[in-house]
Amino acid sequence: MLSNRYASCIQACSACAIACETCAAACLEEEDVAMMRTCIQLDRDCADMCRLAEALMLRDSALVDAFCRLCAVACQACAEECAKHDHSHCQQCAQACQHCVDECEALAA
Amino acid sequence: MLSNRYASCIQACSACAIACETCAAACLEEEDVAMMRTCIQLDRDCADMCRLAEALMLRDSALVDAFCRLCAVACQACAEECAKHDHSHCQQCAQACQHCVDECEALAA
Amino acid sequence: MLSNRYASCIQACSACAIACETCAAACLEEEDVAMMRTCIQLDRDCADMCRLAEALMLRDSALVDAFCRLCAVACQACAEECAKHDHSHCQQCAQACQHCVDECEALAA
Amino acid sequence: MLSNRYASCIQACSACAIACETCAAACLEEEDVAMMRTCIQLDRDCADMCRLAEALMLRDSALVDAFCRLCAVACQACAEECAKHDHSHCQQCAQACQHCVDECEALAA
Repeated sequence: MLSNRYASCIQACSACAIACETCAAACLEEEDVAMMRTCIQLDRDCADMCRLAEALMLRDSALVDAFCRLCAVACQACAEECAKHDHSHCQQCAQACQHCVDECEALAA
Repeated sequence: MLSNRYASCIQACSACAIACETCAAACLEEEDVAMMRTCIQLDRDCADMCRLAEALMLRDSALVDAFCRLCAVACQACAEECAKHDHSHCQQCAQACQHCVDECEALAA
Repeated sequence: MLSNRYASCIQACSACAIACETCAAACLEEEDVAMMRTCIQLDRDCADMCRLAEALMLRDSALVDAFCRLCAVACQACAEECAKHDHSHCQQCAQACQHCVDECEALAA
Repeated sequence: MLSNRYASCIQACSACAIACETCAAACLEEEDVAMMRTCIQLDRDCADMCRLAEALMLRDSALVDAFCRLCAVACQACAEECAKHDHSHCQQCAQACQHCVDECEALAA
């Protein structure tokens, strides 16, 4: 159903959006929520960026390359922040974000 | 990573949003685009509903049950319209929508 | 530009989404962030509901009435939570949410 | 309620998203819908970009400048396409997009 060029990046963006939404919601429930502020902020931005990246690829928009380049920046920032925290949702989110960085950069290259 | 209660519905909503975005974009490129108006409109609403349903489930929002009930209505309308058209993107979308109806109704029951 | 039936509700949803996004971001920066958890969660849901309500009205979707009924529920929950907090962003958000409840209920009636 | 730096750009993005959603829906109802394909595609991308730009500004995201630069590109493309069509929704959309280009470029400068 998906064009070959985008398939793996759409998959990565979809998984990353899910990981970021999950992480943001879980961070907000953590006892040390004050420590998780930056994580929640970056999760939210990253989830929104990945969802729009996915939609733009599905539409084969002319914005895809430039958008994915910026989406990689958002994912990189979120990956770095999440990697600092031991919570399993943060570690899983860091991995999903890092994979999405790779896919978005490869697409935009 | 996902709570058991929501896992299959999140999966269905994610797949349905992808199918609807794909179908809307493809319908717009069809030669008989005038025939595809309703399909495009319902695809757009259904994609947006499924994306928000997914986010609300990932956040375990108090709105989940009521939202999924309404999401099933959106998916049902889109499934019925898409089923009328022979384009493969419409047929695939009809299937994804119908599956999402079942998952959303089961969740909200 | 906007159809008469929806104009004031679109305006209310747009203002409410802005107030909720603003409140969520500001709550996350508050010293007592642990006290603001529910407020942040409800702000996020309400902002997303209002944005989609606005889009559905602009498209004159068949879902408008049912969606606005549910949007009023989301706004009501957020209004009640925000009203408990003295922060000016919470008080302003409570007002925007309450106005949006009224507009959404009037539309869906 | 809004920080001074962003206020006029948020206003422009909000108005542009409304104009683009309105134009997309109206284009789809035009008799010459086949002529409006590109307009509908660009309207959709532009509406989504403007909505996310607005949310990122309300959150004072680190992505704001880069995102607004890209949002200006999306608005410019939509403004140019809409300007080719005599429909009043297209002419109004072209104006809203052009104003949003100016605001986004000024912010990102």
